Amino acid sequence: MTDLEKMGQDAKDCAYELSLIETRRKNELLEKMAAALVTRTDEILAANELDLAAATDNGVAEVMKDRLLLTTERIQAMADGMRKIAQLPDPIGQVEKMWKNADGLLIGRQKVPLGVIGIIYESRPNVTTDAASLCFKAGNAVILRGGKEAFLSNQVLVTILQETLVESGFSPYAIQFIDDTSHEVAEKFMQLTDFLDVLIPRGGANLIQRVKTTATVPVIETGTGNNHVYVDKDATLAMAKKIIINAKTQRPSVCNAIETVLIHKEVAAFFLPELEKSLLEAGVEIHADELACDYMPSAQLANQEDWKTEFLDYILAIKVVDSLEEAIAHINRYGTKHSEAIITENYSASQKFLKEVDASAVYVNASTRFTDGFVFGFGAEIGISTQKLHARGPMGLDALTSTKYIIYGEGQIRN
Amino acid sequence: MTDLEKMGQDAKDCAYELSLIETRRKNELLEKMAAALVTRTDEILAANELDLAAATDNGVAEVMKDRLLLTTERIQAMADGMRKIAQLPDPIGQVEKMWKNADGLLIGRQKVPLGVIGIIYESRPNVTTDAASLCFKAGNAVILRGGKEAFLSNQVLVTILQETLVESGFSPYAIQFIDDTSHEVAEKFMQLTDFLDVLIPRGGANLIQRVKTTATVPVIETGTGNNHVYVDKDATLAMAKKIIINAKTQRPSVCNAIETVLIHKEVAAFFLPELEKSLLEAGVEIHADELACDYMPSAQLANQEDWKTEFLDYILAIKVVDSLEEAIAHINRYGTKHSEAIITENYSASQKFLKEVDASAVYVNASTRFTDGFVFGFGAEIGISTQKLHARGPMGLDALTSTKYIIYGEGQIRN
Repeated sequence: MTDLEKMGQDAKDCAYELSLIETRRKNELLEKMAAALVTRTDEILAANELDLAAATDNGVAEVMKDRLLLTTERIQAMADGMRKIAQLPDPIGQVEKMWKNADGLLIGRQKVPLGVIGIIYESRPNVTTDAASLCFKAGNAVILRGGKEAFLSNQVLVTILQETLVESGFSPYAIQFIDDTSHEVAEKFMQLTDFLDVLIPRGGANLIQRVKTTATVPVIETGTGNNHVYVDKDATLAMAKKIIINAKTQRPSVCNAIETVLIHKEVAAFFLPELEKSLLEAGVEIHADELACDYMPSAQLANQEDWKTEFLDYILAIKVVDSLEEAIAHINRYGTKHSEAIITENYSASQKFLKEVDASAVYVNASTRFTDGFVFGFGAEIGISTQKLHARGPMGLDALTSTKYIIYGEGQIRN
Repeated sequence: MTDLEKMGQDAKDCAYELSLIETRRKNELLEKMAAALVTRTDEILAANELDLAAATDNGVAEVMKDRLLLTTERIQAMADGMRKIAQLPDPIGQVEKMWKNADGLLIGRQKVPLGVIGIIYESRPNVTTDAASLCFKAGNAVILRGGKEAFLSNQVLVTILQETLVESGFSPYAIQFIDDTSHEVAEKFMQLTDFLDVLIPRGGANLIQRVKTTATVPVIETGTGNNHVYVDKDATLAMAKKIIINAKTQRPSVCNAIETVLIHKEVAAFFLPELEKSLLEAGVEIHADELACDYMPSAQLANQEDWKTEFLDYILAIKVVDSLEEAIAHINRYGTKHSEAIITENYSASQKFLKEVDASAVYVNASTRFTDGFVFGFGAEIGISTQKLHARGPMGLDALTSTKYIIYGEGQIRN
């Protein structure tokens, strides 16, 4: 059985080294790892073919197999992603704030690495290199536990990264991979409190829920997005339609897509038939409440489950509401606190929505699809936090750091 | 049995209300609660007397009974503490940063309450009012679970706070108290993942350890401080002595006191006899390694346990080291990452210590006793975090907040 304690101790020792090396050295190592991925493309593709063959044997769905699939171009993209992370500014060492206190102490708040980060994730092998390079750049050791479908692909990727580190005279324990996909090992990993500073799950709602109830290690929940667009009575309806189509159909399988549209009753009669037409053209199936069904003949009647469901598909739930207040209450009840939008030209409605909706990102007159580390300007992201502790919303390098106070004294003692 | 789910739901509902009320209203309520504590001093003292009587019956140590004891002056101090928190600036609503992204979205990072905070603590009843008012000021609902020694005192304190809220037309669920001190209920409380956004334990190492291994709710560890002063070969020895005496004896029972002194071998012969004299005058028992014992005839020989122990008493461990590197390695191995100090006039040694010591607060030429929310300028503190996630070091009101992104668009969709 995998010796998680040993992996944890090795990671901890290496994390200390990593916390001390200079930015230039980290960047050089990232560039070398990226180059090695490209050079060793054939090895990666060979391992990936075996994963794909196993997936076919196990009757894995085509859409899942596409997530699993690696190609020369996709490997190139993974390497480019690593190079981009090398080019980002290094948060470590930055002093955010420095002040003199009443005793004359000069107190600074400095960014330092978190330490050892665990990542538990599902099928896509690019998470392996993305997560590894973000953790590395922020000076953290990482222990990866990928899904069983991508096992051989992930394993060869980590081997390449580790071998590159060793060739460059650095410890391979900066990036480790758990080569056991059993539930028992996963559970033990979630409780490795002596070694893991944080555990970040990336995957579907089931994985997140399992981690949430099992982990005793600090967790940052990510990703589940049951998001809404609310079309206010004072919305510009052409804008509303454009945003709804974008937020639902531009990439329905991602967590910042929307799942439900709420529409003020005063504009329902006029807007819904228009919206239905556009949704049908885009191939979207409509689950609507009774009132909305009146205006959308193709819709099927929605049930309670629809309000809770993250379809991640070409399905949209639609509900007519009496007021802005009802829309906010619905969102705060059924939403997963990810991304929420109001479409309105009414100033007070926009302010009220921003204030009262409890979510990581709240939009006025824009698509929820913008909730993303790259788009927000963070350069890259390790996931989107839907919890309130430590980091909320898109998490870039900063979310992978902690702080320490550095204090310059002149012999002060406390009275 | 206590219905923790109901308490959790009530807290959650109230947290939403609390997140929306204005600062002035929160401050008024805090002032009223403070006034009620003073007005109802007799009730509090009566309950406290019963707690003290039970403590006597149960053979509780005098030092613990002093922690438990309330007096008119101490109640006045609790009320003053609440008033000071009322006067602090409210972090909620502050937008820390606002920028335009490449799509023309105006993105702001706004401080919002965490939601529902659980506090699990031991004997001192002032934690009840301190924690309640800090959570309240930062717009959070709080559920308190105090120790059994202070049960009746805590209960009457919370009753007074709640009754004041209700008289002022506000929900009593902002501040709730678990009136069951059993381990089963505590354990269930630590796993109330659907309702608690964070759990903050305040107490000794055993409590912290139990929470760490049991809780599935996100935890912020606080308080254990196995802290060191390292006296470098280039230290000003008079300053070193003054700081050691202060950090050990000014208040030995607190977490920012020191437990071990490390001293460079080059200055040991000269410094240790001097230090011994001062320590003995201050009534400190010395546990020293073999080398240090040579220079401190009154010392007893230290064992491995001494390096790990948070004495919280007039006991100090002393060890001679060969180098700055050995001192740093010792601290990173045995310290609890709380507060660490170097005494030196050597520039490079000071920088190396600040960089390589992994702790929430790292000092040059100052007493570790300064690690404190008031002293750092945060106005008040809910505890001192020794973990790296979310908050590290003294936690003021800011540590009780989360953020949300508010985004002003003009109809943008994602391409």
